[in-house]
Amino acid sequence: MSRVRIVNAGYVVTVDDADTILLDTTVVVEDGVITEITRAEAAAKEAGDSSRLADETVLDAGGKLLLPGLVNLHTHLPMTLLRGLAENVDLQGFLTRVWAAEGAVMDPDTVELGATLGAIESLLGGCTTQLDMYFHHEAAHRGAVVAGSRHVIGPVFFDGPGPDGLSWQERLDNLRTWPGVLDRVGGPCIPVAAMPHATYTCGPDGLAEVVTVLRALLAEDPRPGLLTTHVSENEAENDGIRERYGASPTEVLARAGWVEPDLPLVVGHGVHLSEGDRMLLGDAHAAVGHCPGSNLKLASGALRWEDVRSSGIRIGLGTDGCSSSNDLDMWLVMRQAALLARLTSGRPDVASAAEVLRACTIEGARALGLGDQIGSVEVGKRADLVLLDLQAPHLAPVHDVEALLVFAAGRGDVTDVLVDGEPVVRGRRSTRVDVPAVVARARERGKAAWAAVDVS
Amino acid sequence: MSRVRIVNAGYVVTVDDADTILLDTTVVVEDGVITEITRAEAAAKEAGDSSRLADETVLDAGGKLLLPGLVNLHTHLPMTLLRGLAENVDLQGFLTRVWAAEGAVMDPDTVELGATLGAIESLLGGCTTQLDMYFHHEAAHRGAVVAGSRHVIGPVFFDGPGPDGLSWQERLDNLRTWPGVLDRVGGPCIPVAAMPHATYTCGPDGLAEVVTVLRALLAEDPRPGLLTTHVSENEAENDGIRERYGASPTEVLARAGWVEPDLPLVVGHGVHLSEGDRMLLGDAHAAVGHCPGSNLKLASGALRWEDVRSSGIRIGLGTDGCSSSNDLDMWLVMRQAALLARLTSGRPDVASAAEVLRACTIEGARALGLGDQIGSVEVGKRADLVLLDLQAPHLAPVHDVEALLVFAAGRGDVTDVLVDGEPVVRGRRSTRVDVPAVVARARERGKAAWAAVDVS
Repeated sequence: MSRVRIVNAGYVVTVDDADTILLDTTVVVEDGVITEITRAEAAAKEAGDSSRLADETVLDAGGKLLLPGLVNLHTHLPMTLLRGLAENVDLQGFLTRVWAAEGAVMDPDTVELGATLGAIESLLGGCTTQLDMYFHHEAAHRGAVVAGSRHVIGPVFFDGPGPDGLSWQERLDNLRTWPGVLDRVGGPCIPVAAMPHATYTCGPDGLAEVVTVLRALLAEDPRPGLLTTHVSENEAENDGIRERYGASPTEVLARAGWVEPDLPLVVGHGVHLSEGDRMLLGDAHAAVGHCPGSNLKLASGALRWEDVRSSGIRIGLGTDGCSSSNDLDMWLVMRQAALLARLTSGRPDVASAAEVLRACTIEGARALGLGDQIGSVEVGKRADLVLLDLQAPHLAPVHDVEALLVFAAGRGDVTDVLVDGEPVVRGRRSTRVDVPAVVARARERGKAAWAAVDVS
Repeated sequence: MSRVRIVNAGYVVTVDDADTILLDTTVVVEDGVITEITRAEAAAKEAGDSSRLADETVLDAGGKLLLPGLVNLHTHLPMTLLRGLAENVDLQGFLTRVWAAEGAVMDPDTVELGATLGAIESLLGGCTTQLDMYFHHEAAHRGAVVAGSRHVIGPVFFDGPGPDGLSWQERLDNLRTWPGVLDRVGGPCIPVAAMPHATYTCGPDGLAEVVTVLRALLAEDPRPGLLTTHVSENEAENDGIRERYGASPTEVLARAGWVEPDLPLVVGHGVHLSEGDRMLLGDAHAAVGHCPGSNLKLASGALRWEDVRSSGIRIGLGTDGCSSSNDLDMWLVMRQAALLARLTSGRPDVASAAEVLRACTIEGARALGLGDQIGSVEVGKRADLVLLDLQAPHLAPVHDVEALLVFAAGRGDVTDVLVDGEPVVRGRRSTRVDVPAVVARARERGKAAWAAVDVS
């Protein structure tokens, strides 16, 4: 049995149902599961009483703050390699440039490299779970799992050949074999996910077929299932779908059997959902992967937090891909989400720090069907945990812990990260990956991507 | 003569008029002034030819990126001690809580401590100049100068006694004696500034009197002068001033002789400027200290970048005080400003990374009347310089340098900072201040502030 004892946590921000914050606490993790959360004095007494286990790792938090790993509910990790490659353009202009670069460089090895780079960036910043979407999904998964991430991905679908050149039948086969591939690759538990790109790249019949195949798979698999796609990211998308189908993207999905309470659905973006769309999604307990940074950067518009919340839709937070965000910093996304909600609502008490922190942890976990496994620091949960150093001047003094996390802390304050109980970041360094080597390879490969779009 | 030779800068983002970016460059600083900017090979040859100066400090940038120090054009540094103390409230609710805390704890020693904490936070994050506004201005200035900051402040004015209990005449006397105090305290060159708090706390006659006194001072002093105050931060402020004076805050200032092309004026916030206000300010070449983070957090509204720019108003960027921001991270402010401008304009090509970077450097410098001294990396300028490490995964690959700075870099990437030619941050550490001791004192003093507002 592996055992990690985290002692001397100055604060534990549990994100349990009561938003409990514990002081001076010890947390014990056994075989990846949190088995004890104890006040420091009681823990010290107990440790004195019992003989110390031989294989126990003691991690002295030194007064740091412990919180659940952050969840990125919409991203495209391999696009780290395309960071800054499509500036000052809208979504459609962005896609034109990005698709050119992807066609030129994104073979499986490059996708794997980009996913490793993205997973490292995520983990170093305290984001332990990413809902990723990218073609060559198996390569991306291998790349992220190597870094130690809880990386959620699945086969991607396009009606056309797409950048990977696969036929629709090959995509369906990829989905059918996906649980077996997941077992082979290993890594922390994730749902079995199917990922058609969008209603503007996948027709209604195909969308329905994906659900049928996924449901058949799940009938024989104990893991949770998941559907995700891009929905109503900007108004041009809505207009195009309305013209083609006389319906909104959400309505197209609903007709294809996508919007059902028994199968988790994460809607990427959801910036321009109508009231009817929101009712459909709320009734099905669907979630939005809200990407404020990307949406604002591409001038896609502003999701109205207060409207989405009041419809019963779950809100998780995402970065989107690095060609539109341009990084994977979930601390920034938390702050952007809180600030944007106050602008759209005109109220300074909408999207409190506590609520935004929940969106970035437990709500993201629940959206993935993993709410009983991760997203909070509670006995029985898998240990996806982050230690945050509070010694930087920008974190003093501590008046309101949740406000400190959302409005002042950042990725630079993260020192240690556990995923599934394993310390994958220690002292701000990856324990798994030679980061300088990955960065050097990414720079080299990035040159080819730039050459494909450089029109100057 | 003191001499600093910065060798091996991988990129120099000069922010000159052509936004020139140099590769592999050496920069020489003599007695605080940039005297050479040379390609690496030429510099190496020259160094080989000439005998090395005995007192030369060589700073090997190791391929890092060199940029001008960032300028924070509206802040209240001592409010670092009140970080997170007024959450989920609007501007008026915020002022109620903050004024209670200030009344309870903000004696001169505490103001000095808060300013030191804020200056350290700023410098560690690459912000070398702050336009600060706070009572006990002399104590604040001492606190910030100790940390090595180019700290711009001046006497604050309120009609009432204010938290410092001074009379109006005492405030005017403070302004009259301010140049002499500046000379005594020392520190890098700053303008002689007068800082009435706002049109809702200072009447028109007093505002006019301040200009008269300042102009008399400047007639005998070679330093630049500066006026700054809060203007049109939210609609309630505009409504109140309109009710009292039948005019906008900007019109009240104009009638008091504040809006003139020969005396630099920085308008803090300026969120709700009318078209007439913008014409007045634009004609006078005034600047706005745009604080997107604070404005959104307090639900004050959204400054329309495109409207302000087209009026000829200079835009600089600010954090506001830490009780509303809640930190002093200018990287975040750059990103927020760029994203917000794309939302208000609906265009992804408004507020490009290059333009936002200019706002945070040269435009801020010009707004302070220091445009010929700082704000860019050019021969003849004072050396307020920042080195940024590009090795982190979130900065790879480098496709678009300015986009990388605005949309992916952060305070955690800053390693070295020079102010007026002096390295005040080396290897992410202050060379001037015992940071852990300051943080510990800030936490202790913060407890008293919290006690004054804690209503739970």
